[in-house]
Amino acid sequence: MKDRLEKQLGFIYEIDRVKGIFRKTRLFHTDRFENDAEHSWHICMMALVLQEYANDKIDILKVLKMMLIHDLVEIDTGDTIVYNRTDADVEAEKKAADRIFGMLPGETGREFHDLWTEFETRESAEARFAGALDRLEPLLQNMSRNGEDWRRNGIGYEKVLDVNKRIADGSLLLWDFVRVEIKKHLDNGDFAKS
Amino acid sequence: MKDRLEKQLGFIYEIDRVKGIFRKTRLFHTDRFENDAEHSWHICMMALVLQEYANDKIDILKVLKMMLIHDLVEIDTGDTIVYNRTDADVEAEKKAADRIFGMLPGETGREFHDLWTEFETRESAEARFAGALDRLEPLLQNMSRNGEDWRRNGIGYEKVLDVNKRIADGSLLLWDFVRVEIKKHLDNGDFAKS
Repeated sequence: MKDRLEKQLGFIYEIDRVKGIFRKTRLFHTDRFENDAEHSWHICMMALVLQEYANDKIDILKVLKMMLIHDLVEIDTGDTIVYNRTDADVEAEKKAADRIFGMLPGETGREFHDLWTEFETRESAEARFAGALDRLEPLLQNMSRNGEDWRRNGIGYEKVLDVNKRIADGSLLLWDFVRVEIKKHLDNGDFAKS
Repeated sequence: MKDRLEKQLGFIYEIDRVKGIFRKTRLFHTDRFENDAEHSWHICMMALVLQEYANDKIDILKVLKMMLIHDLVEIDTGDTIVYNRTDADVEAEKKAADRIFGMLPGETGREFHDLWTEFETRESAEARFAGALDRLEPLLQNMSRNGEDWRRNGIGYEKVLDVNKRIADGSLLLWDFVRVEIKKHLDNGDFAKS
């Protein structure tokens, strides 16, 4: 048992590093960039509160697990902005998943690796709902700051719609709500020119 | 539906504030203090990885929910160090729970309030396991830094044992492991004088 527990604690130490991976989006209430641990916590809370809007019946425990682990690969790869993702980024994340989940005893490591792959490929109702909230959170943050980071990063209205319309795969209701909100920001001049 | 969703989103905005509530303990890998959102995420990960060591059969979903919400009251009260908790602190947290969970639609708000009360009173196997990990994380952090914050806050060996022995209520196995580790730090001179 001692070896097993030390392996598990080694993983628990290692993942502390996601608290130092900063995203390109900022908190709702301050100017500070958000880190991956905070983001993961927040989308878990969103899943608990908004689960009624999922398109399909979902296993909420599975959604939470996916969300808790989905950014661990960024310990090795760093954060990549959703608007500029390359094939090389995807490959690097696979390698990171092998290393990080490989720190755990076999069955837990495999479960996390499978959940991460399922999330990345959006191959289940849970993955699609988790993916929807993973995109919704930065949208809400950015809208709460009147689109400041869209302008800073030169992201136009069409691009925002194009990248975020996949929210509808997880929740048509949430996408219907949020695209109206995004349109308000267009009318308000909050976007970079496309 | 729009009113309901706006209420839910209002809560999701509000709870962003826990990212600005800093604890008295520091991260494993840096000198920075940890905030409540990061801490909540980390103990959720610990629950997923260490659930096999719970004394009793536990509903892991319930454990995760408790952990995700357990520090929201600190939005109003701020962080209080576990070694110096007063009755007035407890009263203030109750008031905060009424306000914060009251922002949600009735049934979700009631569920969260009940989970929070259950966690605080340690009245179920889930609450005892969640409580054990809530104490274990800062212990591990502090030990990874050779007890620097015990010395800084004048916390002696006996006090650390006394406050943390309740880890055993949730997991005898984890307590058995960790008290041996704590003793090593005593032998190493890492404590303040009692």
